[in-house]
Amino acid sequence: MTQSTPFFRTEGRKPSDLRTIRLTPNFVATAEGSILIEAGNTRVLCNATVEQGVPGWLRNSGRGWVTAEYGMLPRATLTRTARESERGKVGGRTHEIQRLIGRSLRAVVDMQALGERTVILDCDVLQADGGTRTAAITGACAALAIAFERMVSTGALKASPLKQLVAATSVGIVEDTVLLDLAYEEDSQAEVDMNVVMTEDGGLVEVQATAERQAFPRARMLEMMDYAEAGIRQLLERQREVIAAEAALRAGTK
Amino acid sequence: MTQSTPFFRTEGRKPSDLRTIRLTPNFVATAEGSILIEAGNTRVLCNATVEQGVPGWLRNSGRGWVTAEYGMLPRATLTRTARESERGKVGGRTHEIQRLIGRSLRAVVDMQALGERTVILDCDVLQADGGTRTAAITGACAALAIAFERMVSTGALKASPLKQLVAATSVGIVEDTVLLDLAYEEDSQAEVDMNVVMTEDGGLVEVQATAERQAFPRARMLEMMDYAEAGIRQLLERQREVIAAEAALRAGTK
Amino acid sequence: MTQSTPFFRTEGRKPSDLRTIRLTPNFVATAEGSILIEAGNTRVLCNATVEQGVPGWLRNSGRGWVTAEYGMLPRATLTRTARESERGKVGGRTHEIQRLIGRSLRAVVDMQALGERTVILDCDVLQADGGTRTAAITGACAALAIAFERMVSTGALKASPLKQLVAATSVGIVEDTVLLDLAYEEDSQAEVDMNVVMTEDGGLVEVQATAERQAFPRARMLEMMDYAEAGIRQLLERQREVIAAEAALRAGTK
Amino acid sequence: MTQSTPFFRTEGRKPSDLRTIRLTPNFVATAEGSILIEAGNTRVLCNATVEQGVPGWLRNSGRGWVTAEYGMLPRATLTRTARESERGKVGGRTHEIQRLIGRSLRAVVDMQALGERTVILDCDVLQADGGTRTAAITGACAALAIAFERMVSTGALKASPLKQLVAATSVGIVEDTVLLDLAYEEDSQAEVDMNVVMTEDGGLVEVQATAERQAFPRARMLEMMDYAEAGIRQLLERQREVIAAEAALRAGTK
Amino acid sequence: MTQSTPFFRTEGRKPSDLRTIRLTPNFVATAEGSILIEAGNTRVLCNATVEQGVPGWLRNSGRGWVTAEYGMLPRATLTRTARESERGKVGGRTHEIQRLIGRSLRAVVDMQALGERTVILDCDVLQADGGTRTAAITGACAALAIAFERMVSTGALKASPLKQLVAATSVGIVEDTVLLDLAYEEDSQAEVDMNVVMTEDGGLVEVQATAERQAFPRARMLEMMDYAEAGIRQLLERQREVIAAEAALRAGTK
Amino acid sequence: MTQSTPFFRTEGRKPSDLRTIRLTPNFVATAEGSILIEAGNTRVLCNATVEQGVPGWLRNSGRGWVTAEYGMLPRATLTRTARESERGKVGGRTHEIQRLIGRSLRAVVDMQALGERTVILDCDVLQADGGTRTAAITGACAALAIAFERMVSTGALKASPLKQLVAATSVGIVEDTVLLDLAYEEDSQAEVDMNVVMTEDGGLVEVQATAERQAFPRARMLEMMDYAEAGIRQLLERQREVIAAEAALRAGTK
Repeated sequence: MTQSTPFFRTEGRKPSDLRTIRLTPNFVATAEGSILIEAGNTRVLCNATVEQGVPGWLRNSGRGWVTAEYGMLPRATLTRTARESERGKVGGRTHEIQRLIGRSLRAVVDMQALGERTVILDCDVLQADGGTRTAAITGACAALAIAFERMVSTGALKASPLKQLVAATSVGIVEDTVLLDLAYEEDSQAEVDMNVVMTEDGGLVEVQATAERQAFPRARMLEMMDYAEAGIRQLLERQREVIAAEAALRAGTK
Repeated sequence: MTQSTPFFRTEGRKPSDLRTIRLTPNFVATAEGSILIEAGNTRVLCNATVEQGVPGWLRNSGRGWVTAEYGMLPRATLTRTARESERGKVGGRTHEIQRLIGRSLRAVVDMQALGERTVILDCDVLQADGGTRTAAITGACAALAIAFERMVSTGALKASPLKQLVAATSVGIVEDTVLLDLAYEEDSQAEVDMNVVMTEDGGLVEVQATAERQAFPRARMLEMMDYAEAGIRQLLERQREVIAAEAALRAGTK
Repeated sequence: MTQSTPFFRTEGRKPSDLRTIRLTPNFVATAEGSILIEAGNTRVLCNATVEQGVPGWLRNSGRGWVTAEYGMLPRATLTRTARESERGKVGGRTHEIQRLIGRSLRAVVDMQALGERTVILDCDVLQADGGTRTAAITGACAALAIAFERMVSTGALKASPLKQLVAATSVGIVEDTVLLDLAYEEDSQAEVDMNVVMTEDGGLVEVQATAERQAFPRARMLEMMDYAEAGIRQLLERQREVIAAEAALRAGTK
Repeated sequence: MTQSTPFFRTEGRKPSDLRTIRLTPNFVATAEGSILIEAGNTRVLCNATVEQGVPGWLRNSGRGWVTAEYGMLPRATLTRTARESERGKVGGRTHEIQRLIGRSLRAVVDMQALGERTVILDCDVLQADGGTRTAAITGACAALAIAFERMVSTGALKASPLKQLVAATSVGIVEDTVLLDLAYEEDSQAEVDMNVVMTEDGGLVEVQATAERQAFPRARMLEMMDYAEAGIRQLLERQREVIAAEAALRAGTK
Repeated sequence: MTQSTPFFRTEGRKPSDLRTIRLTPNFVATAEGSILIEAGNTRVLCNATVEQGVPGWLRNSGRGWVTAEYGMLPRATLTRTARESERGKVGGRTHEIQRLIGRSLRAVVDMQALGERTVILDCDVLQADGGTRTAAITGACAALAIAFERMVSTGALKASPLKQLVAATSVGIVEDTVLLDLAYEEDSQAEVDMNVVMTEDGGLVEVQATAERQAFPRARMLEMMDYAEAGIRQLLERQREVIAAEAALRAGTK
Repeated sequence: MTQSTPFFRTEGRKPSDLRTIRLTPNFVATAEGSILIEAGNTRVLCNATVEQGVPGWLRNSGRGWVTAEYGMLPRATLTRTARESERGKVGGRTHEIQRLIGRSLRAVVDMQALGERTVILDCDVLQADGGTRTAAITGACAALAIAFERMVSTGALKASPLKQLVAATSVGIVEDTVLLDLAYEEDSQAEVDMNVVMTEDGGLVEVQATAERQAFPRARMLEMMDYAEAGIRQLLERQREVIAAEAALRAGTK
């Protein structure tokens, strides 16, 4: 690809546009909170499980724990990927992603208010087209909010331990242009790739910038953060909408 | 539960009724063939992958191979189930089910016509309410049919190696009554549980009857087979519909 | 092989003949119950272990549990098979077989009478010539009966929790002929393969029929069941003989 | 146990007596060479497999390889031992023993004469009463000799690559008394435990002496070696007998 | 801990001070390049291995590959940590760290100039006191530079494929104060933790900022980056010194 | 190499010379006892960990336990060795070595005096040039002695449970010449290889002699034991020196 070729994004996106975002609540009826998040062709099923008890090192601390697991169905990708269960071990990329999701969610949960409960956020990619880890964070936070609100409505919790919402997106530099919310094709050509996790009050929770092809100056990084923050504000709005709709539904069925 | 209590089925089903069956084609766009099958609250995503090459023992035989993998998302169930990837090994139940799916599909594929290709049918349970293995067989067969027909339409295959369709359902005896297509609640109370896999021409491919609580006489088994065969005829009809719709769509887009 | 070739069975067996069956009690002196079962060249060592305690989900239920493990020595087969311990995981076939053995035995044990004990039936194939899983069931049931009777004679149990005996055999269709108790060579050519597990009172515990090469009509299945039931009656007789001989021996040594 | 109690051995053995030794050839018909060795209540099935090809580091060297695997059936022991396949890994004791057996056999095989073949000696303990590793060496060597002689008789090998026989036994010090060929009960009380592997011409292949409870002076070690050498001469005689009988049988069936 | 307590650093460090840094070349004589890096009490042994050949997906591409493995000796920590080899799997933290090291080094290697070779950087922590992953990057880069220069001096490479040096350090916020190069005790109290990887020409390779306790504003992040960049410039100087000393030594021994 | 070539040892060693031995105490500050032992180019880091509690079979026995783990860094060897953590299992050689170290140390510890504590000796090879297992035993014993003496000085133990010191070395026969303390190059050519573990009062703890190429007569074995015992006496002296120096240091810092 020559430098003079202008860069076209699918769906006619401008560099600062997110892909079409959709959050479907209650995708499964079995989980305490369930969201199917779609960002363009990326689809991640995020299910929240709330269990009694905590890992050993927190026992009798009065505090809770939040953790995440991430998986990808074999045909989420264009070429089939072998199951980690068949290979007998969880790979490095999976480990890295689920640790990121877990840390991001723990940053917005009041562990004292949660009490000695463990929340597991299962994020399973049904279809992958880039940005699965950031979609997982955004979807998991909505699933978590819904799970907590249900527990409040049933009296299991006095108030939701969620201090505020958190959402995430990616930004990258492709052919020297900053692009928001990279699809797989874009991501594979990116010189720099960055994931930003941010809360409703604008606080940063995680910033991970990686030079895939060449090191980048700090100015570029700041430019990318501008794009990311604008995108995340839209994602937080989508989360608020689905949580409100779900609350209305719950109120209606009472 | 006393014997005199009449048995009520959800959705007002009669003993010989299947649950509501829905087959959604192209649930993911990444696979060669993709079907989301729903049988009541049971939902299984069946994706067909066709790869070049065969396992070692078939190399240079001119014959193909068909195999299946089965998985369950952690929150497919009401209580979360740990991932097999985390436990580091595939469990016995999973092994048993994926072997059953594989055998069932191999019975209707002409391996010579397939040539040295391997088809992998990934059956992943998104939500579980009983009958996941039989739903997986029915869905996987439709996904396989679509994958083969696409390969015929692109010229990759001369004719579909699928000799005929195959579908499956379960039957059980609950409180001495034969019931078709058991939901989880029914299955857990069943005295006898039976899975039947049958082809369009009425040939049996697999019959597995298990006394969960007490041994059963042969007459009961025959009665159960009558129910199963009637149910499977309806499932085969659902498969033909979705395959035809998909063919029409493909013809339309040409 | 042409259709006109008459089918010869080793040992001059007729289609409805079992192979020579031999049950040797106390093959090892270390187990609570031990049977070496031989069906022609197939030899399976079945050892029953009775341990105090039950798996977690049965604790404080007052009920017991029966499970089975199946293994094959590397040179049980003509070509050496790698050990599952070396491969680091138990294969799908092994899982399928040990689940079948476990279910078959549980169907005839009164778990309340057993109390909170776990019985493990280790079935290890010393030499394999087809029919190892059905031989394992037949042998394991005899080993279990002996173990229970010894516990009764020492006062550890008031009465044997074994409600009745269970035995199993295979039937198949080879060159369109129904054959009882398939040897390996026959099994590898079979169009249909069926395992039947039946109790002394004629109740069916498991029926597993598989079309290895082509689907089969129901009439064929019934014909196979006739052969199986006749064969199982002979196996049950062999079990009763060895259990009686063992009881006589025990009485004599008192 | 007080020091003044005289030490009684089962079967009325004197300190320098071996247990009753029995070598049964052709215990399985499937292996190239098969011996069931019994030393008192210890019973080990030793099967030799000869395969074409060698591990990577020997390819194109013209030299062969000999290795061993050792296993124990769960009820070889009075208390059931979990299967290594179930635990997903081979334990340290198993590793140590199979390495010892492998080294002992390699010492008596002419790898150039064997050519690029791999011999695997599977030693599976059916019943364990001490001395399983030394019984395995003695049995495996006989199985190997028979396998090689059969290959000579069929023309697959010009001459047996076995340079001479090797056999092994244990010696220990119990209550300050040197005892040959320890049974389990004796072994568990031994202050010192020693395994000796020796060839027909009296050469030592392995000597492993371990202070289980207290260090021992060199003089004691020499005394133990005297006992071991005398015992091994008897074992070598048993090996020669079974190999000769097997050769006679083979000659007779020609 | 009250907010009014002034924060004291060990070794009397100011907030912007690195710990004492020492790079010892040739710590082992067996590796192509070997550096023991010490940052205060943190000690990481970094060994570079250069092997012929590349992973499958790069074969015949003419390009090389650089990867890293990270380990920690059980007593690198005050409380013993179980070996990952004993647990049978590599943990998530290890995976995350070795992926970070690998990416950081790949950013400064000219894969075309490397040719079809694989470089593995083994980073083993002998003693851990915080900052092991950034010390590993800094040490591994020096080990890699030395390995490449040796290959140039022996003619195995025409020129070093290392485009420039890369080094890394951590910064954190503890009690609202920005601190450079956190020791373990500081790290465990940090509200925010950040790792920066930077090249000699000031380009950023990785920036990972994590809110351990509370989200942080962008201004704080920039302040932390200032500290990190100043620290990294000193680390790059230490790398240049040890590489030059090693080159002088090599020249002297010629 | 022709038989007439005289055998030269590196460092001008005579057949009965040990390599240069160095024991560095406190190589890491994190362990209860830490020794880096060097024998020529072989370097093993031996760290002693003392934990409360014992394995299940010793609970409430009042007795302690001593065990060892052995590892090798990937570039301890000239050609890189894959990590056992990556391969997912501990290999047979590692198992064999760590069992030997554990047995050797247990022989000199008074388990009653230790009480219900577990000591783990981690022996990690930083650089390997033959004799790593014997160096590990010698180093681990010194680390253990220091750990115990520290516990005595802090009052955690009344007296050291170490009954006496134990040390180990190897001897071999190369080109028909007995050589003490084999380096890797010598070991790879040895006809016979022997490891001897001996206590201060001259008692033997382990003797392992292996014919790598040809069986050996008993006279040769006795000659090798003479060499080993003389070497071990020097190693015990080195241990006493480092333990005394460490005690002096500890006394001085009080």
